[in-house]
Amino acid sequence: MNQVLKTAIFGASGYSGAELLRILSPRTDVEVVKLFANASAGKNIDELYPMFSGVNELPVEHYTPGACDGLDLAFIAMPSGEAMKIVPELQSYVGKIIDLGGDFRLPNASLYKNFYKHEHHAPELLGGVTYGLPEEFKNEITSATLIANPGCYPTSAILPLIPVLRERLIEPAAIAISSMSGVSGAGRSASTEMSFAEVNENVRAYKIGSHQHIPEMQTVLSKVSGENVTVSFIPHLIPITRGIYTTIHASLTRTTSTQEVYDLFKAAYADAPFVRIRKTIPQIKDVVLTNYCDIGFAVDENTNQLVLISVIDNLMKGAAGQAVQNMNLMYGFPETAGLL
Amino acid sequence: MNQVLKTAIFGASGYSGAELLRILSPRTDVEVVKLFANASAGKNIDELYPMFSGVNELPVEHYTPGACDGLDLAFIAMPSGEAMKIVPELQSYVGKIIDLGGDFRLPNASLYKNFYKHEHHAPELLGGVTYGLPEEFKNEITSATLIANPGCYPTSAILPLIPVLRERLIEPAAIAISSMSGVSGAGRSASTEMSFAEVNENVRAYKIGSHQHIPEMQTVLSKVSGENVTVSFIPHLIPITRGIYTTIHASLTRTTSTQEVYDLFKAAYADAPFVRIRKTIPQIKDVVLTNYCDIGFAVDENTNQLVLISVIDNLMKGAAGQAVQNMNLMYGFPETAGLL
Amino acid sequence: MNQVLKTAIFGASGYSGAELLRILSPRTDVEVVKLFANASAGKNIDELYPMFSGVNELPVEHYTPGACDGLDLAFIAMPSGEAMKIVPELQSYVGKIIDLGGDFRLPNASLYKNFYKHEHHAPELLGGVTYGLPEEFKNEITSATLIANPGCYPTSAILPLIPVLRERLIEPAAIAISSMSGVSGAGRSASTEMSFAEVNENVRAYKIGSHQHIPEMQTVLSKVSGENVTVSFIPHLIPITRGIYTTIHASLTRTTSTQEVYDLFKAAYADAPFVRIRKTIPQIKDVVLTNYCDIGFAVDENTNQLVLISVIDNLMKGAAGQAVQNMNLMYGFPETAGLL
Amino acid sequence: MNQVLKTAIFGASGYSGAELLRILSPRTDVEVVKLFANASAGKNIDELYPMFSGVNELPVEHYTPGACDGLDLAFIAMPSGEAMKIVPELQSYVGKIIDLGGDFRLPNASLYKNFYKHEHHAPELLGGVTYGLPEEFKNEITSATLIANPGCYPTSAILPLIPVLRERLIEPAAIAISSMSGVSGAGRSASTEMSFAEVNENVRAYKIGSHQHIPEMQTVLSKVSGENVTVSFIPHLIPITRGIYTTIHASLTRTTSTQEVYDLFKAAYADAPFVRIRKTIPQIKDVVLTNYCDIGFAVDENTNQLVLISVIDNLMKGAAGQAVQNMNLMYGFPETAGLL
Repeated sequence: MNQVLKTAIFGASGYSGAELLRILSPRTDVEVVKLFANASAGKNIDELYPMFSGVNELPVEHYTPGACDGLDLAFIAMPSGEAMKIVPELQSYVGKIIDLGGDFRLPNASLYKNFYKHEHHAPELLGGVTYGLPEEFKNEITSATLIANPGCYPTSAILPLIPVLRERLIEPAAIAISSMSGVSGAGRSASTEMSFAEVNENVRAYKIGSHQHIPEMQTVLSKVSGENVTVSFIPHLIPITRGIYTTIHASLTRTTSTQEVYDLFKAAYADAPFVRIRKTIPQIKDVVLTNYCDIGFAVDENTNQLVLISVIDNLMKGAAGQAVQNMNLMYGFPETAGLL
Repeated sequence: MNQVLKTAIFGASGYSGAELLRILSPRTDVEVVKLFANASAGKNIDELYPMFSGVNELPVEHYTPGACDGLDLAFIAMPSGEAMKIVPELQSYVGKIIDLGGDFRLPNASLYKNFYKHEHHAPELLGGVTYGLPEEFKNEITSATLIANPGCYPTSAILPLIPVLRERLIEPAAIAISSMSGVSGAGRSASTEMSFAEVNENVRAYKIGSHQHIPEMQTVLSKVSGENVTVSFIPHLIPITRGIYTTIHASLTRTTSTQEVYDLFKAAYADAPFVRIRKTIPQIKDVVLTNYCDIGFAVDENTNQLVLISVIDNLMKGAAGQAVQNMNLMYGFPETAGLL
Repeated sequence: MNQVLKTAIFGASGYSGAELLRILSPRTDVEVVKLFANASAGKNIDELYPMFSGVNELPVEHYTPGACDGLDLAFIAMPSGEAMKIVPELQSYVGKIIDLGGDFRLPNASLYKNFYKHEHHAPELLGGVTYGLPEEFKNEITSATLIANPGCYPTSAILPLIPVLRERLIEPAAIAISSMSGVSGAGRSASTEMSFAEVNENVRAYKIGSHQHIPEMQTVLSKVSGENVTVSFIPHLIPITRGIYTTIHASLTRTTSTQEVYDLFKAAYADAPFVRIRKTIPQIKDVVLTNYCDIGFAVDENTNQLVLISVIDNLMKGAAGQAVQNMNLMYGFPETAGLL
Repeated sequence: MNQVLKTAIFGASGYSGAELLRILSPRTDVEVVKLFANASAGKNIDELYPMFSGVNELPVEHYTPGACDGLDLAFIAMPSGEAMKIVPELQSYVGKIIDLGGDFRLPNASLYKNFYKHEHHAPELLGGVTYGLPEEFKNEITSATLIANPGCYPTSAILPLIPVLRERLIEPAAIAISSMSGVSGAGRSASTEMSFAEVNENVRAYKIGSHQHIPEMQTVLSKVSGENVTVSFIPHLIPITRGIYTTIHASLTRTTSTQEVYDLFKAAYADAPFVRIRKTIPQIKDVVLTNYCDIGFAVDENTNQLVLISVIDNLMKGAAGQAVQNMNLMYGFPETAGLL
C-alpha cells in the first residue's frame, strides 16, 4: 500500500480512544485525521491529555454526519449503545469500521436486551459482523468491513480456553472464571465509586451473573468448540489502573500432564505473535503497555481440575492494541506493526 | 476476674505482633508485659513502629527460657517453624498459649513435611491443640491451653463454606477458591518481590496447588461437615496492604433460592458477633481494621453453582483480632471486648 | 455531666461526616441522634458506608428547620458555602455548633470573595467565631458557641510554625510551605480528576497562590505571632487516601541548634496531648487513623534555613478528630476522650 | 554510520539497566551484546523480567576484565561505588562509557567522602568527565568518552533553574527544593523500608540536608550561572513506582510577569526536544514512560517568590532515557532516536 491510511477515532476523550492515538501517532503508514467526542468537543487533545503536548494537538470535534467522508477506517471507542446509532450512517462514508465497544459482539438483539439492558438499534447489521479476535478469526478479519473488537474480559478468558475446549480436555459446562481488572476498563468518567478514595485499598466483585461479557464468552466459546459452553464469571475491581488477571477453574475430562497441556498450547498458538505460553505464573506487569496475552496453567491433581491463568493489558490487547492488530490484518500491514 | 491478665507477645516486630499490641494497648483488663523479637531486640517498640510514640515504648527483648515465668498468656506471632521450637518449653512457664502461625494447625507431622517443607519438632503436641475458630469451636476454646489461631485464607474460606457444606447444599469435592490478599499477610521482612515497585500495578497468583493453607482448609471442612472436602485454592497477591477477598465457586447439589441461602447463613451465624451476612456484595473496605468477616453470595442458575464471597482484614479476623477474640473466650471476657 | 450529649451531623454522607460517626459511635457519653445529607437522604448510613452494618444504621435525612430542636451540638461537615446558609437559623435550636468547613474561619467577608469565590451570607457572625485549634485557643474553645474547625492544611502548617514564629527564630515573610495530601481531603463526590485512574501513579500541584487556606494560615499566624506573616503555599495531590505531609522552609533569623529547637517545641507543646515532637523524620503512617500531629525538623546550615515537617491524618486531626477534641473541651469531657 | 553500535549494560538486573534494554531492544542501529550483573548472573534476562519473554532472552553474566573487548559503548547502571572500580580497566576495552550512577558526577574526591560516605577509587578520572545533561552540554557530550549521566533529582531541579539563574531573576542562595519520588529511583533490591506495606499510604522525607544530590545540584548550577548557588533539598518518598515531582521556591530579585518567565523558558529551551514549557501545572502522568521534562511555574506576588515545578520519569529522563539521549549525541544519531 503506497498511500497513508486515513482514520478517525470516535470517543477520543476516553482511555481507549487516547490509547489508539498513542499507538498510532508514531506510525507513518497510518494517519489519524479526525478525533470525535461529545463532552470534550472544542478542546485539543493535548488539553485533555497533556502527555500529547507537542506530540499531537488535534482538535476534538462533535461528529456530524458526513464528517468522515472519504476516510478509510473509523475506530469507535464510545460507551455502550452509542456505536449502534452511528454505524449505519457511517458505513456510507468510510470504508471500514472497528467498534471497540460491545454494540456488535453478540449475535442477536434479545441478548442485548437481557445483558445490556437496552434495545438494539441496528439488529439488521448483527449478521454481518466479524468478531475481531485475530488468533481465531484471522481470515474473516482480513476481508471484514465491520469488526466487533472483543471485550477485555472475553479476550483474557477465551484465549486460554479455546485450545483445551477444542481438545475436549475440560468439561464445557460450569467453567469458573474469576477476573480482576484495573479501573481504566470502566472508562474515563466521573463517578464516586471509581474515585481513588473508594478504589484504593479495596476490592469488590460486581455484576455477578449478569455481566454483559458472559454471553460474549459463551457465544464465542460454543461456536469455536462445537459444544454448549457455560461460564460462571465473577469480575472484581482492584486498585490498579491497567491490566486484567483472569484465573479459571475447569474440570478435567481425563488425566493429563503439565507437559501435554504446554505442548497443546504451544501448538495452538504457534503462529500467534501476541500469545505467549508461560512455564511460570504470569503477572500483570509482564504485559502492561504491550499487546501480549500471557497464558500460564497448572494441573491440580487434588481436585482433577485444570487451572488457567491469563494476563493482558485491558487497554492494549483488551481494546486499542487489539483494534490496531485487526487494522493491520485488514489493510495488509504486518500483524505486529506498531505494537512491539 | 479481678486481676489484670498478664501477657507476652513473641514476634512483636512483625505486623501481627504489632497489631496485637495496638489492640491490647487501650485495655485495662489485659497488660502486655513482654515483647520478644530476634532481629529487633534492643530497640523499643516505638522505634520500630513510631505510631506507638508516647503510647507504648516497651523494650523488645530476645527471648530466653524462663523470661515468661508467671505470665498468664503468650501470643506467638513468629514465622512458620519457630513456635514449635519454643512451645514445649514455654508451656511450663505460662498458663496458656495462642499461636498465630501455622505450627499447630495441621493434625499430623506428615502434612507439615509435605506443605511446610520441614519436619515438625513437637509432633506429640499436635493431638492436644484446639483450632481457634470461635464461630465453630467456642466450647473447646474456652478450656483450651494451646490454641492454633486459624490462617488468614482459611478463616475467609471456612466461614462461608461451613453452613452450606453442613446443609449438603454444595458438592464437597473440587471447590474452587480464588483469594486476593494484601501484602501484610506475608509479614514484615525484606524481599524484592514484596517491594512496592514489584507489587504496585501488579497481580500475581502463587503457590498454586501447594499452599500450606490447602490442608488446613480441607482438614477443618472435612471434620466439620463429615464429608471428604477437597479444594482447589489459588491465592493472588494484589496491591493493597490489608485485607483478603475470597471468591468461591461450588456446585449446587439441588436447586435453591437466594432467600434460602440467606436464611441458612443467618441461622448459622445468629450467635456470631463478628460474622455479618450481607445482601449486597461485600468489599474489603467494609471490614478493614475490624474483626468482622462479611459474607455475600449469589446463586448462579446459568451454571448451577453457588458463588460465595467473603472479606476479612487479614491482620484482624485473619490474625491478631481473632487471637484476641480467642483470648476473650479463654479468660471469660466478653467475646467482643476491645474489638468493636 | 450526667446526661448524654445529643448531637447531629450535617453532611453525614461525606468522609468527614462518616469519620465523626465512626469516632462517636463507641462513646456512651455522646449520642449521634440525627444524620443529615442531601443527595443521600432516604438511605440508612450503612447503605452508604457498609462498614457500619450492624453497628449504626441511622437514617440519613434532609434537614428541615427545627429538626435539631433541643439538641446540644451540631457538627457541620458540608461543602464550602453551605454552612453559612444554615447556621443563623440553626443557632436558635441547638446549643453549640462546630463547623468543619471553611465558612467561618476567615475574619472578614472580603477574603471569602477573593479566595472562596463567593459572597458570605452571614458576615455578621464572623466576629463571634472561635477558631478551634485547641493547642492555641483552649480557653476560648471552652466557652465558645460557634467553632470554626481549622482546615487540614492550616492545622499541619500552623502547629509547627507557632513556636518558632513566637520565638522570632524565623523570618515571618515568604515562608515556603509544600504540602502533600491524600484524596479524601477533597471529599466524597464524583469527579474525573479524583478518579483512581487519574490519581494513581500521579502527583499534581493545584491552586498555586490561590488556595483558600492561604489567608487562613496568614491570619492565624499573624495573630498569634504579632507579626505580618506571609506564606507561599503549594498543595499537591498524591495517591494516598488519608494523610497530609507538610514540609516547610523558613529563613532563620539567627544561628540555632537542633537541641534548642527541640527544647523549644517540647516546651511549647508540653500540655498538648496530640502533638508529638519527634527526633526522627515523621511519616504519614505514624499518625494515620489517630488525632496526632507529629512534628519533626532540621536545621539546614548550608542555607541558614529551618526545615519543619509535620504529619496529620486529614480526616482526624485535620477534620473530625479535631472537631471531637473541640467538643470534649466545650463540654468538659477529657480532651482525649474517644480519641486514643 | 553504517555499522551497528555494539553496547554492553552493567547492572542489567536493576530497573535502570532493564529500562535501557527496553529502550534499545527495538533499535536496529544499536545492539545490546552483553548484559552484566552480579547476584543474577547465570539467568537469562527474561527470567528476571518476564516482560522480555520472546523479546530478548540474553544471558546475564558476571563481568570479567576483557569481556567487553571491542565493544563501542558501555552503560553502567550499578549501585554507587561500583562503577569507579570498573571504569579504569574498562576504558582500555570499550570506546566510550556512560555511567548512570553517581561515581563521576562530583568534581573532587572530598565531596564523595562527605556525601557518598566512601573514598573515591579513581579520583584521577574526575577531571576528564563530561556531565551528560544534553540541554546544557551538548557540544562536550558529542566528543566525550566518559559521561556522568545526571542524577534523577538534579535533572528535575537543574533544568528549571538554569534559565532563571542565568537571567539573575532569582536569588542564588537558599533555593528551597522539595521533591517527591517514586520508589523505582531506589533501585531493585530487598529492603523492608521499600516494601509495599511500608510505602503504600505513606510519605516520608529522608536524607534531609545530607543527600548526595545536593553537591551535584550546587556544582552544576554554580558553574552554569557563575554564582555561588546553595540549595536546601528535601526528597520525599511517595507511593508511586515511577516519576519525580519537583517544586521549587526561589526569591525573585525583581518584579516580573508570567509572560516574561514563559518567554524566558521558551527561548532557553527552543532547541531542546525533551523540555516542554507548560502553561498549566504539570503532572507526573504527563511524562511517565517518556523522556520529557515538563516545566511549569507561577509568580507568587504575595511573597515575591518564583515557584517552579518540573516533572520527569526518573527511569527515563532521570536515568536510562537521558543515557540514550547522550548516546545518540555521542554517535551522531538523531537526538530523539528511540525516545519518542
